[in-house]
Amino acid sequence: MSGTLIRVLDKVNLPEDLRKLSIEELYKLSNEVRELIIKKVNSTGGHFAPNLGIVEATVALHYVFNSPVDKFVFDVSHQCYTHKILTGRKEGFTNPECYLKYTGYTAPEETDHDLFKIGHTSTSISLATGLAKGRDLLGGKENVIALIGDGSLTGGEALEGLNNAAVLNSNIIIIVNDNDMSIAENQGGICEHLTELRNTNGEVKNNFFKALGFDYRYIPDGHNIENLIEVFSKIKDSDHPVLVHMHTIKGKGFKPAEENKEPFHWILPNTLDHLGEISSQGVEDYNTITKEYLLKKIEDGTPIVAINAATPGVFGWNKEFRTKMGRHYVDVGIAEQQAVAMASGIAKRGGKVVMGVMSSFVQRTYDQLSQDLALNNSPATILVFWGGISGADATHLCTFDIPLISNIPNIVYLAPTCKEEYLSMLDWSVNQNDHPVVIRVPMEISYSGEADNTDYSILNKFKMVEQGEKVAIIGLGTFFQKGKKVKDILKSEFGINATLINPRFITGLDKNMLNSLKSNHSVVVTLEDGELDGGFGEKISRFYGDSSMKVLNFGSYKEFTDRIPINELYERYHLTNQMIVEDIKKVL
Amino acid sequence: MSGTLIRVLDKVNLPEDLRKLSIEELYKLSNEVRELIIKKVNSTGGHFAPNLGIVEATVALHYVFNSPVDKFVFDVSHQCYTHKILTGRKEGFTNPECYLKYTGYTAPEETDHDLFKIGHTSTSISLATGLAKGRDLLGGKENVIALIGDGSLTGGEALEGLNNAAVLNSNIIIIVNDNDMSIAENQGGICEHLTELRNTNGEVKNNFFKALGFDYRYIPDGHNIENLIEVFSKIKDSDHPVLVHMHTIKGKGFKPAEENKEPFHWILPNTLDHLGEISSQGVEDYNTITKEYLLKKIEDGTPIVAINAATPGVFGWNKEFRTKMGRHYVDVGIAEQQAVAMASGIAKRGGKVVMGVMSSFVQRTYDQLSQDLALNNSPATILVFWGGISGADATHLCTFDIPLISNIPNIVYLAPTCKEEYLSMLDWSVNQNDHPVVIRVPMEISYSGEADNTDYSILNKFKMVEQGEKVAIIGLGTFFQKGKKVKDILKSEFGINATLINPRFITGLDKNMLNSLKSNHSVVVTLEDGELDGGFGEKISRFYGDSSMKVLNFGSYKEFTDRIPINELYERYHLTNQMIVEDIKKVL
Repeated sequence: MSGTLIRVLDKVNLPEDLRKLSIEELYKLSNEVRELIIKKVNSTGGHFAPNLGIVEATVALHYVFNSPVDKFVFDVSHQCYTHKILTGRKEGFTNPECYLKYTGYTAPEETDHDLFKIGHTSTSISLATGLAKGRDLLGGKENVIALIGDGSLTGGEALEGLNNAAVLNSNIIIIVNDNDMSIAENQGGICEHLTELRNTNGEVKNNFFKALGFDYRYIPDGHNIENLIEVFSKIKDSDHPVLVHMHTIKGKGFKPAEENKEPFHWILPNTLDHLGEISSQGVEDYNTITKEYLLKKIEDGTPIVAINAATPGVFGWNKEFRTKMGRHYVDVGIAEQQAVAMASGIAKRGGKVVMGVMSSFVQRTYDQLSQDLALNNSPATILVFWGGISGADATHLCTFDIPLISNIPNIVYLAPTCKEEYLSMLDWSVNQNDHPVVIRVPMEISYSGEADNTDYSILNKFKMVEQGEKVAIIGLGTFFQKGKKVKDILKSEFGINATLINPRFITGLDKNMLNSLKSNHSVVVTLEDGELDGGFGEKISRFYGDSSMKVLNFGSYKEFTDRIPINELYERYHLTNQMIVEDIKKVL
Repeated sequence: MSGTLIRVLDKVNLPEDLRKLSIEELYKLSNEVRELIIKKVNSTGGHFAPNLGIVEATVALHYVFNSPVDKFVFDVSHQCYTHKILTGRKEGFTNPECYLKYTGYTAPEETDHDLFKIGHTSTSISLATGLAKGRDLLGGKENVIALIGDGSLTGGEALEGLNNAAVLNSNIIIIVNDNDMSIAENQGGICEHLTELRNTNGEVKNNFFKALGFDYRYIPDGHNIENLIEVFSKIKDSDHPVLVHMHTIKGKGFKPAEENKEPFHWILPNTLDHLGEISSQGVEDYNTITKEYLLKKIEDGTPIVAINAATPGVFGWNKEFRTKMGRHYVDVGIAEQQAVAMASGIAKRGGKVVMGVMSSFVQRTYDQLSQDLALNNSPATILVFWGGISGADATHLCTFDIPLISNIPNIVYLAPTCKEEYLSMLDWSVNQNDHPVVIRVPMEISYSGEADNTDYSILNKFKMVEQGEKVAIIGLGTFFQKGKKVKDILKSEFGINATLINPRFITGLDKNMLNSLKSNHSVVVTLEDGELDGGFGEKISRFYGDSSMKVLNFGSYKEFTDRIPINELYERYHLTNQMIVEDIKKVL
């Protein structure tokens, strides 16, 4: 990247360096930053289009405000790459060897310029109200600036935050980065209002933000650095809440992303090298299976609705699928609470509703699962995707859904181990009217090769897959295959013919089967792909507490891990097949 | 109530009967209903002022709309008593013997006129969007009407619901019952905007609801039945989303409540018979202790903030206290997500923040506890009140907070057993900077009589209260006293000198102490005042899974109970002291 050309970036290590630059240099810097982002993200994967859209605005913000004295909070931090480059971390983008040195999110452990570790949406305004309140109590004078996207603005926490920020009576600056997109299309009245605001240069008749009490400013071109600096300079040190609504272009500077935003929100490594190619279709996975099932239900005349909160890509609910679904598809925006409550309402009215949600985001709607759904026994179906131990960022861990969901009364939480079971469970759930049902959809497809004719209305009946003795292995969902392998090792290495059980139900115990194990087993082993604390295995331990049965629970520990390779986590949690076998041997 | 006077109510059993009445009779009916509510609620306790405020509006709604074909959703259902009286359940108010026959909330098991069991706020709009979507899919034609109070409107779920309702493109009617009060005063930009709307007869310049896309109607006097009927008749069968903003008076028709709304939001039995009397002050409880502590911290110059989400009454944070706290007090409105995130922000900025929340409502903010608070290790203090098994309504159970909170990494959840411990924990928490801390405040005060000088920064150290043998009893928080009694019975009846442990920490195990028990104990008993599934005891069971130690976990089952007397629940859960002893005997 260096060579003979002189980069403006070479003169910039920290925000203060920006203030020595001319406007022309700031534009040049923005272009350099944009190129770095394109190259780096294409190499490592990551949030692409959101970051391209906010380069100039970030440059202008750091030019005007004085970070880290002034405090920035980046909502969801999908758009913090320029901020990272300008706050001492540019090597993470200039030097391929440092590409993985910094996280893709704001991270206080990296620098004082980051206040919070953030990866879930809609939190920035609320966090900023706290920073502002703390400042006022302690007699500080700094600016508190919350950035938030138009998509994130539809989340309940953001709206609660707006309601409170508006009456703070002191400095708080909210920057709405409006690129007219959520991850997919935007949804709802607020989004339509933002369109009106853009179309009227901020002069619409009923202004949502003014109604709430904000001093509202509109920036029609969020890539015009002079305008940005002008507006930011005016509101700097404001003594009251200000809301800046700036229009930016998601994917700015990379044509294919500007023209087709959704697939470029987040990209896999090397995506840009294969733009002409058709993505590999035709490979069956749980996404394709689910989509086929839903489309078939429409043909059957079933009043089915597929619902989700702004993350259709997680389940492969692409444009083609959404178009086919038509009025049978609902995206509520970034609003998981709304999604669950709406699902409950649809089910109450006789609709057949299937909601998709990523494990990490189901956390955003606990009370609705409990009160709107479970307490009312609404027969909706929720599919939890990506549940399990992974090398993900600390903000996107998917190990907590079992403790979260399975301890709520009335919910039937199911863990299929193969395609046949999944389809059988899904179809049972859609056709029944008695229970809220959640299904933990595995990441990787597998097949049992035989039809599953189980009547799932008989709750909490575990499946005895192979009856053995001494050791009983209960392999839940995605860890059933691991149970099988452990059984094989016990057989081949120690001649133990272990029992293998597929529990299928996460939310209840098959007491008959568990009791029957007492006669010829001394150890029960549980395997679950998620947090042990509050999870499935502990319930088995409790069950056997008054007996002499030994119980070993395997799963992940209660901790936030941050991009730790999965193999390392398996070692840490004693989850390799060999380690499990060794632990079993110790208690035999 | 009957006697010689002829009541209009005698002619009314179901909504259809209203349509035979004259306007004059509707007013007379409203007065009769109001009198019944005053008498009944004074006898049983319950939500008082909210119900008095919506009598005429409910009469008018049932006059115009055709329930149960048309579908009403009452937010939080604190205001459904008139609805109950008009939908076949008037005996619950006319006949003292039936006073407890019906719940204080909407309840589908009682009638088809109730769609959902509701007791948490801010859910009605979202649930209604589901009913409307289901109707549209199934080809129905009915009206879907969501009622919501101005206070409830500040909750994230309600705002997510508004955003989605606005773009439904079909019939949905939202009635904002604006009585200018939440439980305490209203908070935030929306509330100030509603005031503007009332002051301008709905003609303010920037209309929040119109900005979202609603067809907005204003009713200045929500007790004027003619006006109500006129507006409701016009919008009936609307083919698009309509929002009716009606101004009502909380406590209407009962002067003391009209003049001093907060203490009459919910009343204890016989409150109205003792209006002149000063409430019993001077009795120490955890509310007074907490308030004293917080006020003293202000005097110390600590930058302390007490924060809560619209329920200051739960912790006795009355007007006097709030005034004394001044800028050290924040009520974020009904917005628990905002409260937790704001607390995290305050703590990050160096403020010392103590948030109060009722156990049942902490459910409304799981993701913020996890992402905004725990992941960021923000040293805020959260006090969970009312946690424990109770005879409460199904919507207000307080048994789920331990599974909910204790399985989130990084949080230190503490369970004091007496005043001394509570104050010591609270003070430690406020002074430290390393952990998010939650304290489960007991309902009933007790004293150990000795100062607690524990250093709580040494995490997960259980307290060995009495070293014995054979049986070890671990009594958590409010159930420590129960553990003591069980120990006494074991001694007196069976001569067993049991060990007694006060764990104090809910979120981690004292492995050294638990291991040391193995040498001379064969049974460990855990007692917790909350749900067993995902709770504290199961972690002890897991710990001993590879040993020969027997473990018995006592607590409540995973279920929604509905106004079951606590003694009955204790029997059901084997939680009487005698039953616990018997269960222990069985495994000895």
